[in-house]
Amino acid sequence: MEELKNRIRQEGAILSDRVLKVDSFLNHQVDTELALATGREFAGAFADENITKVLTIEASGIQFAMAAGIALGVPFVYAKKKKAITQSDSVYTAEVHSFTRGETYQISVDQRYLSPQDNVLIVDDFLATGAALVGLVDIVRASGARLVGVGAVIEKSFQEGRGLLEEKDVRIHSLARIISMKPGEVHFAEEDRRAGELAKERS
Amino acid sequence: MEELKNRIRQEGAILSDRVLKVDSFLNHQVDTELALATGREFAGAFADENITKVLTIEASGIQFAMAAGIALGVPFVYAKKKKAITQSDSVYTAEVHSFTRGETYQISVDQRYLSPQDNVLIVDDFLATGAALVGLVDIVRASGARLVGVGAVIEKSFQEGRGLLEEKDVRIHSLARIISMKPGEVHFAEEDRRAGELAKERS
Repeated sequence: MEELKNRIRQEGAILSDRVLKVDSFLNHQVDTELALATGREFAGAFADENITKVLTIEASGIQFAMAAGIALGVPFVYAKKKKAITQSDSVYTAEVHSFTRGETYQISVDQRYLSPQDNVLIVDDFLATGAALVGLVDIVRASGARLVGVGAVIEKSFQEGRGLLEEKDVRIHSLARIISMKPGEVHFAEEDRRAGELAKERS
Repeated sequence: MEELKNRIRQEGAILSDRVLKVDSFLNHQVDTELALATGREFAGAFADENITKVLTIEASGIQFAMAAGIALGVPFVYAKKKKAITQSDSVYTAEVHSFTRGETYQISVDQRYLSPQDNVLIVDDFLATGAALVGLVDIVRASGARLVGVGAVIEKSFQEGRGLLEEKDVRIHSLARIISMKPGEVHFAEEDRRAGELAKERS
């Protein structure tokens, strides 16, 4: 998604070779037009999948799940984060380890909002370590719903998230795929380049 | 907003005379069409205010701030919650006491995203104790921006939030104003009834 890549080039703050801040337009202040455009991209990429529901995790996935829900004409659900480990019969839960915060938290979705009749697209702002997204995948599968795939606004391909999702046979569609970065410099994968070719090039 | 009130009557779970759960359509699973409609209502109510930015707080305000941002054609900002009390020169902060959780947390907005040139509409899912909204009002005023008002999707008029905002001379527009409730029963204020008349009636 060329417009998104341009904004990352112009406004993204690359603090290290792993940390990219995009809070001027994606996840603190939000450019609503750009967010809506990401939703249309996801809807187009998964157009043949008869999606019935979009799933994300609070907080910074919400604007993109909403955008995808608007483009697809379906509701969205956001998993709740909580530290309390109060298991309940009425929610699907997964444990997520945050590497940046060094803590493990629980995410949960009320069982009423995912069913075996659903075709679910998972959406989030970042695919990096993949920890939260793997948790969402596990929740969808526990519910019996069909997982259509994962849509990430920004993928940091040099982190392990893509590999973890591919191990689980999850289709991934990222709108801006960063293969490397350092302060002042960001390199994107070509959109039509396949994962295998990319891996070969990087090895 | 009649459609919203009907959904509250049909799907709201009133757990006590103070606790209303609307997580099947507003703040866990989200009806995207209904959320968009709330945004249009807010945009209409504040149409003459030349709003340049919508402000909310993570997580459950995001879908309504996005909807208002879409309707108004402006970006939105969501304040971050954190427990850490690491004051920074580059953020506006406020302390918020959560009565339900019995804890105080800090909310913050990067100073780059609110300026004296902004006309700001604050939006949230609930106006109840008003704690978080008062914090957002203080942040807007600290920034020098002009506060246009507060838009609440649901107001529980029998809690203290409205009074706290009115003391601060904040214009309030709520889409569904609950004057009393108990399990199985919810009573709304008439939309065109003024706060003074309502208070008289309740006294």
